[in-house]
Amino acid sequence: MRHIIERKRDGGRIDPAQWRELVLDFARGQVDEAQMAALAMACVFHGIDHDETVALTAATIESGERIDLGLADFVIDKHSTGGVGDTVSLIVVPVVAACGVHVAKVSGRALGHTGGTLDKFEAIPGVRTEIEPATFAAIVRDAGCAIAAQSDRLVPADKALYALRDRTATIPSPGLITASIVSKKIAAGADGIVYDVKCGNGAFMKDAESAWTLARMLIGITESFGRSAAAVISDMSQPLGPVVGSGLEAIEARDYLRGERRDPRLHELIVAIAGPMLELAGRERGAVIDALAGEGPYDRFIAMTQAQGGSRAALESLRPAPGASAARAVADGYVSAIDAVRIGELARAIEHRGVPCSGIRILKRIGDSVRRDEPLGYAIGATEADGLALGAAFSVGAERVLAPQLVVETLSGSLARSTSATK
Amino acid sequence: MRHIIERKRDGGRIDPAQWRELVLDFARGQVDEAQMAALAMACVFHGIDHDETVALTAATIESGERIDLGLADFVIDKHSTGGVGDTVSLIVVPVVAACGVHVAKVSGRALGHTGGTLDKFEAIPGVRTEIEPATFAAIVRDAGCAIAAQSDRLVPADKALYALRDRTATIPSPGLITASIVSKKIAAGADGIVYDVKCGNGAFMKDAESAWTLARMLIGITESFGRSAAAVISDMSQPLGPVVGSGLEAIEARDYLRGERRDPRLHELIVAIAGPMLELAGRERGAVIDALAGEGPYDRFIAMTQAQGGSRAALESLRPAPGASAARAVADGYVSAIDAVRIGELARAIEHRGVPCSGIRILKRIGDSVRRDEPLGYAIGATEADGLALGAAFSVGAERVLAPQLVVETLSGSLARSTSATK
Repeated sequence: MRHIIERKRDGGRIDPAQWRELVLDFARGQVDEAQMAALAMACVFHGIDHDETVALTAATIESGERIDLGLADFVIDKHSTGGVGDTVSLIVVPVVAACGVHVAKVSGRALGHTGGTLDKFEAIPGVRTEIEPATFAAIVRDAGCAIAAQSDRLVPADKALYALRDRTATIPSPGLITASIVSKKIAAGADGIVYDVKCGNGAFMKDAESAWTLARMLIGITESFGRSAAAVISDMSQPLGPVVGSGLEAIEARDYLRGERRDPRLHELIVAIAGPMLELAGRERGAVIDALAGEGPYDRFIAMTQAQGGSRAALESLRPAPGASAARAVADGYVSAIDAVRIGELARAIEHRGVPCSGIRILKRIGDSVRRDEPLGYAIGATEADGLALGAAFSVGAERVLAPQLVVETLSGSLARSTSATK
Repeated sequence: MRHIIERKRDGGRIDPAQWRELVLDFARGQVDEAQMAALAMACVFHGIDHDETVALTAATIESGERIDLGLADFVIDKHSTGGVGDTVSLIVVPVVAACGVHVAKVSGRALGHTGGTLDKFEAIPGVRTEIEPATFAAIVRDAGCAIAAQSDRLVPADKALYALRDRTATIPSPGLITASIVSKKIAAGADGIVYDVKCGNGAFMKDAESAWTLARMLIGITESFGRSAAAVISDMSQPLGPVVGSGLEAIEARDYLRGERRDPRLHELIVAIAGPMLELAGRERGAVIDALAGEGPYDRFIAMTQAQGGSRAALESLRPAPGASAARAVADGYVSAIDAVRIGELARAIEHRGVPCSGIRILKRIGDSVRRDEPLGYAIGATEADGLALGAAFSVGAERVLAPQLVVETLSGSLARSTSATK
């Protein structure tokens, strides 16, 4: 093991067979955690190449069970690298299902400053996401889509390694991140995956170049396992949607799907992500526009909600928590920056107090002009101090600032057409 | 702790107060080893600056006891960063003592491919080096010099951290190496220290530049604690002395001190190191030449050996193990390289079989001309296979090669004169 660490420390390459043995031994608790931590830190500095990442991903999958959804049709999943106010999954899953493509979405919990789709979906009273693979497959088949937590029996090596990396500050290695994400998706049975790679101050990847590198790796490694993939690089230099908080985002998703209210930023990204999801499944991108004009998406959302233990009545009775404390501009000018990490952390702190459908509402965006004392946003179901804290996340300057581009780039994989055609 | 690791990972500086807390907690077993290993690896990549190294050194000293030798005179120590066939300590300690300067040498055991002075001294039957600080001080006072193992009660933080770094391949960080070495020397009570920093394929520092950096750090950090220091950078691209192995090196030291046989390479380095040892103590360098002409050095060696449990008779009865297997040149030409690591490991493997005074004798050096079948060296008290293995450590080429310079550079510290004058 020491020789393996030395090799990586000195910029070398670890043999695929050694990666496999290391990962499987680690999952069994047979590797010294201090040695694994030192190796992970060396990977943060020197990276791991394509073959090493494939070996790490394959061994991570091998460490646990694999789900066979038993569906004849092409099954698509999507994954976001994590952001603030990212309500996309809850919306795009039923939208794509409404276009006739099965969506089997495996999601995670809130982590750090980022929200978790499971928490948002479970904000609808009765909804359960901890379901058995067979139930998951049945719901996908019958309702067209489902959102479930990853089974504990999948990728145990990733669970152990991620926990170690989290406490040893060794998360930011594109190769290790890629292996962690892709292994979960493949083990959960997806045929195609669209990755939403966030970049900006609220994302793990701070700049477009590192986001691009990660997106390319995600596509390349996914395709190495014979699955098709595409990626969208999207801006996370400010919260994505208009609200941040599990219950508030569930309400936002409901209202979007009913066609009542469509935030333009959320809408832009949903169309940008639904397009490649349809294309990977061999459909036309345009189908999403037709679907959004009809009742299909909301029908699929209701069907999925009911199948997972919720009810239409519970969903439709959700209301934002009472009481809103404003964050106000301290001067006339333009919003020059919004600290998305701070807003994500604030929203989680507010939610932790247990008031349902509490969190943050964003009114002003980067580039918007504001007048002194004008509200920039609200802390919902929260205290006056929360409103002040929210205000501190906004920077207002005298000079005009351009709004950042939301969809930075769309990357398609080389297998996109061929794989979708053959299943 | 995670924030501390992140800061170092991203190239930042850890606050001296945080280093102190971290080191003291680690010595008490209150720090997660995986986190410490990740931090150590980040230090390998980004280094630690002067103030961080001082803080780490100070906390390491604070983690255990400090020895007060209770000697009115200036006490000098020397330290080698570790090499192969490095018999210098066993010789230079009584030589400097014969010049009237007290030498309190704290030594280590063999480590990796390098030999240990304690093992060499203990090759003299009866000699013990695991002695109490009070005994150590008394021997230094009466015999003029002593060579002892570091007490277990000194620098426990270094013991724990070194073991962790050893198994996690995080040794090669100049700052961490410096703190480890200097903390031991200061805790053991030395007033002045001369560092012999090895460079070349047989050393931890492979090139002169990194050896120079380490030498400068060793001097700077030692002086931060009000002790005087100097350093010699010496070549370790081939074994230093003519023999490698504890008993063989004890014989070599005895014969050198008796004036019977003085290997020119050993002699050159002994003079180069004894000089600054004398200067730090306020004496003239030249005294070493006078001392070497007389019987003083051997008298001191006998006195120290007797004080530590050995006898003159036991020392003088030491003979190389019978049986020598030659390593022979495979062609006419010049020795172009000698793999010192391989020779160090081979010597240790031979010794491990338990034959006293076994090991390696080197006959040819880099730059020497050789004829086919001429002996390059001998495996002593060993098998024919050992002779062949020894031969494989030599490279012989047709082109003439220059012998490497043994003493690369001598660095003196800024406090050298002033400190020695004030004690």
